[in-house]
Amino acid sequence: MTFELTILGSSSALPTAGRYPTAQVLNVSERFFLIDCGEGTQIQLRRTGISFGKIRHVFISHLHGDHYLGLTGFISSRNLLGLRSDLHIYAHSDLVGLIQPQLNYMKGEMGFEVIFHPLNFKKPGLIYSDKVCEVWSFPLKHSIPVCGFLFREKQAMPNMIKEKIEEYNIPFREIQGIKRGEGFTTAEGIFVGHDDLTKPAPPSRSYAFCTDTIPYEPAAEFIRGVNLLYHEATFLSDMEQWAEKTLHSTARQAAEFAGKAEAGKLIIGHFSNRYKSVESFLEEAAAIFPATILAEDGKSYPIE
Amino acid sequence: MTFELTILGSSSALPTAGRYPTAQVLNVSERFFLIDCGEGTQIQLRRTGISFGKIRHVFISHLHGDHYLGLTGFISSRNLLGLRSDLHIYAHSDLVGLIQPQLNYMKGEMGFEVIFHPLNFKKPGLIYSDKVCEVWSFPLKHSIPVCGFLFREKQAMPNMIKEKIEEYNIPFREIQGIKRGEGFTTAEGIFVGHDDLTKPAPPSRSYAFCTDTIPYEPAAEFIRGVNLLYHEATFLSDMEQWAEKTLHSTARQAAEFAGKAEAGKLIIGHFSNRYKSVESFLEEAAAIFPATILAEDGKSYPIE
Repeated sequence: MTFELTILGSSSALPTAGRYPTAQVLNVSERFFLIDCGEGTQIQLRRTGISFGKIRHVFISHLHGDHYLGLTGFISSRNLLGLRSDLHIYAHSDLVGLIQPQLNYMKGEMGFEVIFHPLNFKKPGLIYSDKVCEVWSFPLKHSIPVCGFLFREKQAMPNMIKEKIEEYNIPFREIQGIKRGEGFTTAEGIFVGHDDLTKPAPPSRSYAFCTDTIPYEPAAEFIRGVNLLYHEATFLSDMEQWAEKTLHSTARQAAEFAGKAEAGKLIIGHFSNRYKSVESFLEEAAAIFPATILAEDGKSYPIE
Repeated sequence: MTFELTILGSSSALPTAGRYPTAQVLNVSERFFLIDCGEGTQIQLRRTGISFGKIRHVFISHLHGDHYLGLTGFISSRNLLGLRSDLHIYAHSDLVGLIQPQLNYMKGEMGFEVIFHPLNFKKPGLIYSDKVCEVWSFPLKHSIPVCGFLFREKQAMPNMIKEKIEEYNIPFREIQGIKRGEGFTTAEGIFVGHDDLTKPAPPSRSYAFCTDTIPYEPAAEFIRGVNLLYHEATFLSDMEQWAEKTLHSTARQAAEFAGKAEAGKLIIGHFSNRYKSVESFLEEAAAIFPATILAEDGKSYPIE
């Protein structure tokens, strides 16, 4: 089962020659969740070869332009490609007024519905759930309302031990029941318990997305134990006061936050264009939270 | 004096991994005119190193998304960079309703004015004029109102022949008058005519931009003799019927149009993403109009 993050854009508000504004795709068992949609997202999708049609859910953290200005182009191209599946957008309710005029002006009939789901910026909430995973939004703290997102696989049922099926001649119709916790009684009347017939499924995986924000303690609580955490690190510690003033985080703060959240791994991004190189971000963060990596546009990060 | 076109984007509505939606910059003696502003324009400006601050005039041909969706991001970044010069946008009046909600939602105070100048889609009109050049809009024909743009250097005054200044001991204060057409009378009372004192300036140069459109004869009339013509060639002749239906042009039609316009050189772009390679566009057009070149993102084309 795939659980893989692809970074499409990792710059802060001002893009650079090598970094696009924020956008990511999380692939959870072939569900492709688009997280933020900065300008140029559709071009990065072309480059990474991610199918427009597989993206049916878009999560927008907040309404600064570098996090949503790629939406109209993405929707327009998705339509021009002839796709017909509805598109669900989870965002601040103000988004409708910002992009609907452009959608109304688009050429051609829309072949699918764009369905807006307003987020709650006051408290965490479950915003998506299907057979294999769920998505939660939770408040962060920035100059305008912003939500983080937590993507979590559901715990899969245990796997049958193949040899036991043969050994006890277990009919197919019994398998689901055994996976759900039942035992099995053989033709000879011998009862074999659930634990002897199954092995536990691998633990479920999780990913949390936190940008734009100061290091916000209630969020660390909420996502505690997450496998992979993306946290913004717009500045280095030399700019900590400016980070505070603009309600962003430094690399050090992102690392401290990852520690508090007991994250498995930290990926940092949203780098300010004032820094020529991003290596110092890694140095600063890894000194505190060694399992840190740098976001890089176009690169994919499987979560094991 | 510079007169140079830089292509930022040359794809049609659907961008590809290698081509952005339409955007160009024309540099006329250090005036940087942005022509169309598809999604990703600001990223291409970063890559080509063209200064955001030097762009003070933006010309939008029509309101399909692939020609204007980069505007909000460009304006936002221009503001974040601390630039203070006003920005003039020449476009259909509907543009205001499409991008003003997003501009109003931007973070931070705007440090400059965005001034909208509505275009006339019924007949040609002078829309910009300064000391060295002028810009005209003129109607084209597509599924929604669309204008082409003609950029023309003003004819410079003739240059003084340096040796004559020494020979006749001409004082500095007389120079402007002579350039404007006067003669000069020496201290000895000898009259020397304007033509003997000056040599003509190089002829003025011009550039015309025509997209999205069918090959539209009145436009060929209007731009007759243009030095460099950009004309869309969305399809090859194999798709001529589809081109007609969608009100676009084929490479052959672009070449025929260039011939009618007596253009010096033709540059074609706005290639449909259905073609894997663009070499066939060049073959098809150059067979009719040999001085044809292909638009390439990030490349500059000086006009001699």
